[in-house]
Amino acid sequence: MRKTASPLGLHRVIEPAGVLPQAAWRLDPDPRIWPDEVLIDVERLNLDAASFRQLRESTGGDQAAMKAAVLGIVADRGKMQNPVTGSGGMLTGVVREVGQDSPLGLKPGDRIATLVSLSLTPLAITDALASWDSGSEQVPCQGHAILFGRSIAAVLPDDLPVPLSLAVMDVCGAPALTHRVVSQASQTIDGAVVAVLGAAGKSGSLSAAAARGAGAGLVIGVVPHEQEAAMLAAARSADGTRGLVDRVVIADATDPIGVSDAVREAGGPADVTVVCVDVPGCEGGAILSTADRGTVIFFSMATSFTAAALGAEGVAADITMLVGNGYSAGHAELAIDLIRSEPGVRQIFETRTGE
Amino acid sequence: MRKTASPLGLHRVIEPAGVLPQAAWRLDPDPRIWPDEVLIDVERLNLDAASFRQLRESTGGDQAAMKAAVLGIVADRGKMQNPVTGSGGMLTGVVREVGQDSPLGLKPGDRIATLVSLSLTPLAITDALASWDSGSEQVPCQGHAILFGRSIAAVLPDDLPVPLSLAVMDVCGAPALTHRVVSQASQTIDGAVVAVLGAAGKSGSLSAAAARGAGAGLVIGVVPHEQEAAMLAAARSADGTRGLVDRVVIADATDPIGVSDAVREAGGPADVTVVCVDVPGCEGGAILSTADRGTVIFFSMATSFTAAALGAEGVAADITMLVGNGYSAGHAELAIDLIRSEPGVRQIFETRTGE
Repeated sequence: MRKTASPLGLHRVIEPAGVLPQAAWRLDPDPRIWPDEVLIDVERLNLDAASFRQLRESTGGDQAAMKAAVLGIVADRGKMQNPVTGSGGMLTGVVREVGQDSPLGLKPGDRIATLVSLSLTPLAITDALASWDSGSEQVPCQGHAILFGRSIAAVLPDDLPVPLSLAVMDVCGAPALTHRVVSQASQTIDGAVVAVLGAAGKSGSLSAAAARGAGAGLVIGVVPHEQEAAMLAAARSADGTRGLVDRVVIADATDPIGVSDAVREAGGPADVTVVCVDVPGCEGGAILSTADRGTVIFFSMATSFTAAALGAEGVAADITMLVGNGYSAGHAELAIDLIRSEPGVRQIFETRTGE
Repeated sequence: MRKTASPLGLHRVIEPAGVLPQAAWRLDPDPRIWPDEVLIDVERLNLDAASFRQLRESTGGDQAAMKAAVLGIVADRGKMQNPVTGSGGMLTGVVREVGQDSPLGLKPGDRIATLVSLSLTPLAITDALASWDSGSEQVPCQGHAILFGRSIAAVLPDDLPVPLSLAVMDVCGAPALTHRVVSQASQTIDGAVVAVLGAAGKSGSLSAAAARGAGAGLVIGVVPHEQEAAMLAAARSADGTRGLVDRVVIADATDPIGVSDAVREAGGPADVTVVCVDVPGCEGGAILSTADRGTVIFFSMATSFTAAALGAEGVAADITMLVGNGYSAGHAELAIDLIRSEPGVRQIFETRTGE
């Protein structure tokens, strides 16, 4: 092991020099760890939804082409950061080696999920993705990855299947921030209205459950078509007496007028709108669905900063718009608790991850 | 005049159909107004800083090329929305005609500034920009523009020069949101620390003044070099007893470690960090400059959504990140009041706009 390292991983940045690992083009995935690092034997990557969609669309879904694309990115960049979307995902694996100064509290043999993005995690793949059929964003994989001093990882719970835990932890920032924002809104608004765009998805269903847990009075789930509407309507709350959401509405989230009209008819405008739809162009609909002085939380990595900023200004919307931060204290625990306690959410996850 | 119109301007969208004017590629700038619209004789465009920078850099600053670029965009799109940056700016002009159903309270002859972005304002230019020397983002211009029912415009104050009012109103969303966020932070934090990246700029200096007015305990101004440091240090508070900011520090906002170290040495980390630097790559520095559970407000149109979201997650920063909404109720009034009452801010504006 070498002598000193940055807890942010600056010492792993090859180019351009001086930037943070997330902003770097290329990282050094050398498996010889520094004293505050941890070396992971990788078992599975979970690609970010926006990245997986881009890979599938740019390759036409061809299996060999998708494998080649992922392998090419990792070989070129030393990390799995999609150069088009900028996004990554996360991974699970087993701790192989822990540096003497690591503050993460891990020990060799722990099965963990990384809670920092693949977009900044040094990674090398050694099995040519032989076991990946390219049909899912969950990528079985052999290789190694590095955690820095200030990285975050969670030991996987032993009462849940690993793919389920991985899928939950990948989006655990969304329910945590939704819970926080809805709790704050509920201090001044009696029975706050929450609209979740993409409520039948993974981050969306968790966010809907989190919103209700935080005191929302009405949860509106927006989905793109009948099939998702049926899936969402079938998802029940923890006590079985009501749905995971109170109203299910079908609307195209990229159609600002369509989606905002639908939310209004279902009991909106929303005091809090949560955007969990991983396609570009949802900013306008979210803004128009939101009440004066309400809040939009953008979790989609397909969100355009300028479209959000100028879109709100353009319609004179005095609303708060939050960048969906993937991290907050206790986020993994909150999401894992939700998947344990909310059968409707678990049902959606199991359908979506095909487990 | 024709029969019905959308207050959002949907009836002016030519392509793609069904999107909001801000997201549209092309608008219809036909000067025959609908009943809730207002027709403006344009006098001056104020290009967004990111857009102006892009135009200057892509043309090498050549006068004819810059004119041709702006004219080409407006001819092609029916609005002045830079296709690279996505941003616009604003304009001043004189009201020529007011539709019978317009809710904006304007009358013919009013000299106004539009407070919605040029990126969604139907516009035609008729003088080939003959009076623009291309050295400034303020573009003298003849032509016409359209305001919708839900647009926002402010009658220009008669005690201030028009270019100054225009420059102030262009960035008035920044001090308004800064004021709101710092006021909220001050409810729980005694003497909140506010860092303004780009404090010697227009939105930055207004935001610094707004932060102090909202109860900030320490205002740190970050600037890129000695010249701006001197300009900022020379700017005094309204009563002349202190600087516009308490500490001036020189750091490159795109160097995350450099800027966060500088903010820390000046009394940080910041409870509220305000990003007013119109260059890409400031997300990491802003995040690392901000205290746990603090807030970053991104006003720069060069902000990358994914860099912000993944950057915070990547360093386990439990912070709130706001998209700088250009609109909030009373934003123009607050900014105009600041320019009247804060000689230091006015001095910076006069230096920067060359008036």
